[in-house]
Amino acid sequence: MYTVSILNNIARHIRLDEEEQAYFLSLLEEKELRKKALLLREGDICRYDYFVVKGCFKSYSLNEKGQENIVQFAPENWWTGDLYSFLTGQPTKFYVEAIEDSITIQISKTNLQLLFDKVPKFERFFRILFQNALIAQIQRVDDTLSKSAEEKYQQFLSKYPQLVNRLPQKLIASYIGVTPEFFSALLRKMKQ
Amino acid sequence: MYTVSILNNIARHIRLDEEEQAYFLSLLEEKELRKKALLLREGDICRYDYFVVKGCFKSYSLNEKGQENIVQFAPENWWTGDLYSFLTGQPTKFYVEAIEDSITIQISKTNLQLLFDKVPKFERFFRILFQNALIAQIQRVDDTLSKSAEEKYQQFLSKYPQLVNRLPQKLIASYIGVTPEFFSALLRKMKQ
Repeated sequence: MYTVSILNNIARHIRLDEEEQAYFLSLLEEKELRKKALLLREGDICRYDYFVVKGCFKSYSLNEKGQENIVQFAPENWWTGDLYSFLTGQPTKFYVEAIEDSITIQISKTNLQLLFDKVPKFERFFRILFQNALIAQIQRVDDTLSKSAEEKYQQFLSKYPQLVNRLPQKLIASYIGVTPEFFSALLRKMKQ
Repeated sequence: MYTVSILNNIARHIRLDEEEQAYFLSLLEEKELRKKALLLREGDICRYDYFVVKGCFKSYSLNEKGQENIVQFAPENWWTGDLYSFLTGQPTKFYVEAIEDSITIQISKTNLQLLFDKVPKFERFFRILFQNALIAQIQRVDDTLSKSAEEKYQQFLSKYPQLVNRLPQKLIASYIGVTPEFFSALLRKMKQ
């Protein structure tokens, strides 16, 4: 029932016939999470790649003071989890938490391998997905080092236009790496 | 004549028949660079993905004091260039310089697209290449933030075992982010 959105996502890069669609769908599992439920916690091994069909997730690490450093939001039609842990089998350093009641569709590593073997055109889909993740990762590192808070907020707006009126301001502040107070002052300044 | 090494590299992940090999090789260009020659400089758009068949390259950015921050070495059988610039068409922030007399085999973005269309199994090869680049990129960010100089040197040794007796110490020091003096003291300490 939520398969339409994942099939649309796949169709952005590859075309599947009916048999391939059916096989792909047979490898997926659906998962519902209430607001504040964790998809992953630090130390877990990420065993699935998750596609968000409803709701929104935040990925964060905790610093030594117990503060959250938000590294990603994943609203509908984004993939989430921790690709590094998923691909290497190493424990994740991140928490991935539902910030709204959410539904994901997940695929395990074993099933992903089956999919590559049986429907090789998925290599193309994941080639593009990993390529885009790589671009985003490099961009994010560069932003952290060289961008002002205002520039980071502009990047947030262009990356997540659907989230600006949906997330608490303190989450956006954490994502761009400033205090909620600094962020409020920044918004006032930008409106002038 | 240098095609054996790139075909071996490809064969690590996919199997090509003779016709596919011939087509792939027809899309490549060979390039010789003398020591100190630049494959890329800051501001260039990276138009090729480069496979190193001989020699070694360093990728670095220059900080405001004109000092090199080395982000990657690429000896034989590594791919180099700047994937971010190559994929997005944005100017690179890096210099890629031959640190020995070197030879590369390069493929342009247009030819890579032709290759994906005509020999789709290359999607798999580049899916794995991008996946590994993503893992290395995430690992590198984490190392920079959380590892000591000694741990970074251990990682250098395991990543580039063939380079430890081949590179000037000052390049290894730059790669792990310490001064040449600090690095000499570290080596003395590790020998004790």
